[in-house]
Order: sequence, then C-alpha cells, then structure tokens
Amino acid sequence: MRMRNKPWAIDFIADHPQFVISNPTEAKGKWHEIFGNSHPIHIEVGTGKGQFITGMAGQNDSINYIGIELSESIIVTALQKAIEVDLPNLKLLNVNAEKLTEYFEDGEIDRVYLNFSDPWPKPRHAKRRLTFKTFLSIYERILVDGGEIHFKTDNQGLFEYSLTSFSEYGLRLQYVSLDLHNSKFEGNIMTEYEEKFSGLGQRIYRSEVKFLNEKLRTNKWF
Amino acid sequence: MRMRNKPWAIDFIADHPQFVISNPTEAKGKWHEIFGNSHPIHIEVGTGKGQFITGMAGQNDSINYIGIELSESIIVTALQKAIEVDLPNLKLLNVNAEKLTEYFEDGEIDRVYLNFSDPWPKPRHAKRRLTFKTFLSIYERILVDGGEIHFKTDNQGLFEYSLTSFSEYGLRLQYVSLDLHNSKFEGNIMTEYEEKFSGLGQRIYRSEVKFLNEKLRTNKWF
Ligand SMILES: C[S@@+](CC[C@H](N)C(=O)[O-])C[C@H]1O[C@@H](n2cnc3c(N)ncnc32)[C@H](O)[C@@H]1O
Ligand SMILES: C[S@@+](CC[C@H](N)C(=O)[O-])C[C@H]1O[C@@H](n2cnc3c(N)ncnc32)[C@H](O)[C@@H]1O
Repeated sequence: MRMRNKPWAIDFIADHPQFVISNPTEAKGKWHEIFGNSHPIHIEVGTGKGQFITGMAGQNDSINYIGIELSESIIVTALQKAIEVDLPNLKLLNVNAEKLTEYFEDGEIDRVYLNFSDPWPKPRHAKRRLTFKTFLSIYERILVDGGEIHFKTDNQGLFEYSLTSFSEYGLRLQYVSLDLHNSKFEGNIMTEYEEKFSGLGQRIYRSEVKFLNEKLRTNKWF
Repeated sequence: MRMRNKPWAIDFIADHPQFVISNPTEAKGKWHEIFGNSHPIHIEVGTGKGQFITGMAGQNDSINYIGIELSESIIVTALQKAIEVDLPNLKLLNVNAEKLTEYFEDGEIDRVYLNFSDPWPKPRHAKRRLTFKTFLSIYERILVDGGEIHFKTDNQGLFEYSLTSFSEYGLRLQYVSLDLHNSKFEGNIMTEYEEKFSGLGQRIYRSEVKFLNEKLRTNKWF
C-alpha cells in the first residue's frame, strides 16, 4: 500500500547498489569482502528512515553497519541519508528480517540492533514481533557466539514482552534502563521514532542481551 | 538504634511464640509440622509492618505464610496485625535473611516474596541488596526446584539492577510489569511502602522469576 506513495522508490534503490545491496543472497558469507575489512558488523533490523544507522556509522568508523528495512518507500529515505554522508562502513538491505539466514552466514554478524520495532499489541500477533522466539533463533544463527541484541522502545507492553521472551530463550540480560534519557548511558543516537515519542513525554526503555554458548549458559557463576 | 523507640518490643515478641517463632533453628525442616499441614509455604523477606503477609494469609487459606523481618521494633507492628487476624496459616520470624539456611531445610519453601526491599543505591553497597547473588543462592537452596521469587518495588534503580542480577544468576524472567497498578494483574495486595509510594504518584514495578533445574536451564525451547 505504502508503495503507491513513492512509485520512484524501486528505481531509485536499484540505481544505488553501492548503498542498497542488490543481490543480497550472493552477499552471504562475503560481507567482510564487501566492506573491504575485517571489522565487526552490526545490523539494525527495521531501520526505518535511517537516522540511527547513519549516525552510528558516522560515529564509529571501525565498525561496519547494515540497515535492514522491509519497505521500499521507507528505506528510500535512509538511502538519501546514506548518499549524503557517503560512508564506506554503511550499507542498506531492502529485505524481510524473516529471511536473514539467506543473506548472512552463521556467525557473520556481531550485534543486532532493534529500535522501536512494531509492537503488535494483540496476543494473536505475538509471532510478528521482532523479539518473538523465531526471530531470536534467526539472530542467534547469524550472530557470533556471545553476540548481543541491543533493543530500545517507548512501548511498555513490547518491552515487558521482550524481556520475558529474551529470558525464556536463554538470553542473558546484561543491561536494562527503564528511562534511557535520564540514565547514565552515553553516546545514545536517537532514531526518528525516539525523537517523536520522547518529544511527547514518553519514557524510552533500553536493554542489552547476550547469547551465551552452552558452557557459559550452565555456569551461573560466570 | 531503632530499638530505643520501642523498648517493649522484645518482651512483646517473646510473649507471642505462637506468632513469632522463638527458636527458629529448631524449626528447620519442621515447618509443615508447625503449620500442621502439607500446604505450600511462601515467605516474605523484609516483611516490614506486615500488611502484605497478613493480607495474603487471609486471602489464601491453603498456603502457609511466614513473614521475615530483621527489626524488632518493626516486626512488632506485624505481630499486632497477626494477633488481630489470628490466622493458622501465618507465622513471623524475627531473623536476618542472611541466615535463612539455618531456619529452613533445602527445598522446604515454595516461593519467596520481596517487596520494596531497601534499595542500597550506592554500587559499593550492592551486596546488601536482597537481590544480590549471595541472597539469590540462599533463596535457591531453601526453595523447591522450580521455586519462584516475586518481587515488587517503586525503585527504578533497584528494579533495573535486580532484573540483571536475576538473569546473570540464571533465573528465568516469567513475568514483568513496568506499571503494576495500571496492569491486568489481579489480586494485588498492597504493602505499606506500596501505598505510600503509589500515593505519591510513583509507578510500581513487579517481576516473577523462576529457578530452573539444570535440565530445564539448558533446554531453551522449554
Ligand atoms: C516503527 S518503525 C521504527 C523505525 C526506526 N527503527 C525508528 O526507530 O525510527 C519499524 C520499522 O520496521 C520495519 N519492519 C517491520 N518488520 C520488518 C521485517 N520483518 N523486516 C524488516 N523490516 C521490518 C517497518 O517497515 C518499519 O519501517
Ligand atoms: C523498605 S522496608 C519494606 C517493608 C515492606 N516489605 C513494605 O513493602 O512495606 C524493608 C524492610 O526489610 C527489612 N530488612 C532489610 N534487610 C533485611 C534482612 N537482611 N533480613 C530481614 N529483613 C530485612 C527492613 O528491616 C525493613 O523493614
């Protein structure tokens, strides 16, 4: 539906394969080649209009970033930002997160960011949430051992759900803030949604969770 | 120090051994005998003036409750409430939670409640928090396999800390509410501190966490 708003998006994306990877299945296992270095690779799933991923890439030049977004008419705005900053450590992918294992080799990724993911508040839609266990198992596969998910949202229900979903999956909760903008966390880069909702007086919640290999997982004193 | 406020407290407690158990080390392993039934036993650690534990005992007559409180001058108020309601499923213990394994056999307890525990906000006092790992290991010993801790507080910092402490210990987060009084949780019994802080407009946080045996702990699909 959204497509009708920006009929030019598909062509504009296709014209910029150096920013929005055009044959992502061929990139599988070759992301370090694509970036031309062996730096860690961090992805943002549901990157939206790209303010976060562009800002992160600008701030951390020894980390490679990939912004993943399903919607052409939304990622096109991220593409415009990417063209503007023109950074070698920033790529975009116009794909569905359900298929990430087709585009990334096991252990190819070092961190997953989830920012203001769609809340899908109805229980019967729980499996669409990007923190549902099927998505966690996808992230687990493409992440290195000890890889992390960094998640922020203004949505109380989604945050509550996600903490329990992470825990049930066996992820370790390493950090949690129940009011990010009044916390000691440094270097926060705001997303478009974060600016909007914090501007309306909403608290922002944030957590960092880690996948542990079996050895670590059973050693509770670690 | 607080003792000076109520010099009569020690005698008043000693005069009511049917409510405040007087030789708790002798009770170890005999709590079901003391209650005269095989119902589950739930304890509240840091029970304060006893509104919660008295209310719970009144509401659930097939569960045995023990309120544990360090301070004589505070538990004496809980004792007065216990005398008033005079319930067979309610006992009090005037002891330090650090020594719970001296008063309870391994696996003798079914649930631990922590309500509005002292926050000890300074990092160097972290080990005094009732959700610090040494306390968690005490609860783990006296709890049955699959036993739970139910925790509520208004203190944001303590709640953030406790979620990560639970997770690092290997506890599974089963339920979390970031705004208990506006949630669907039913049958909430307010503590004295809860009435005070929610009256001041503070949000109340609540969580339920579970100790898993090793088999469950490593089976993340459970
Ligand atoms: C609520 S927006 C948040 C955008 C941005 N992260 C922010 O904080 O401003 C969620 C975004 O996730 C995208 N999205 C939802 N499900 C997705 C999926 N399965 N794969 C890729 N992107 C997805 C949506 O198209 C939307 O742009
Ligand atoms: C902040 S008050 C909360 C009281 C009550 N739970 C409420 O919500 O109204 C904390 C209580 O825990 C008790 N306490 C603190 N450390 C304790 C320990 N190690 N063992 C037993 N009680 C303790 C304190 O004496 C105090 O009464």
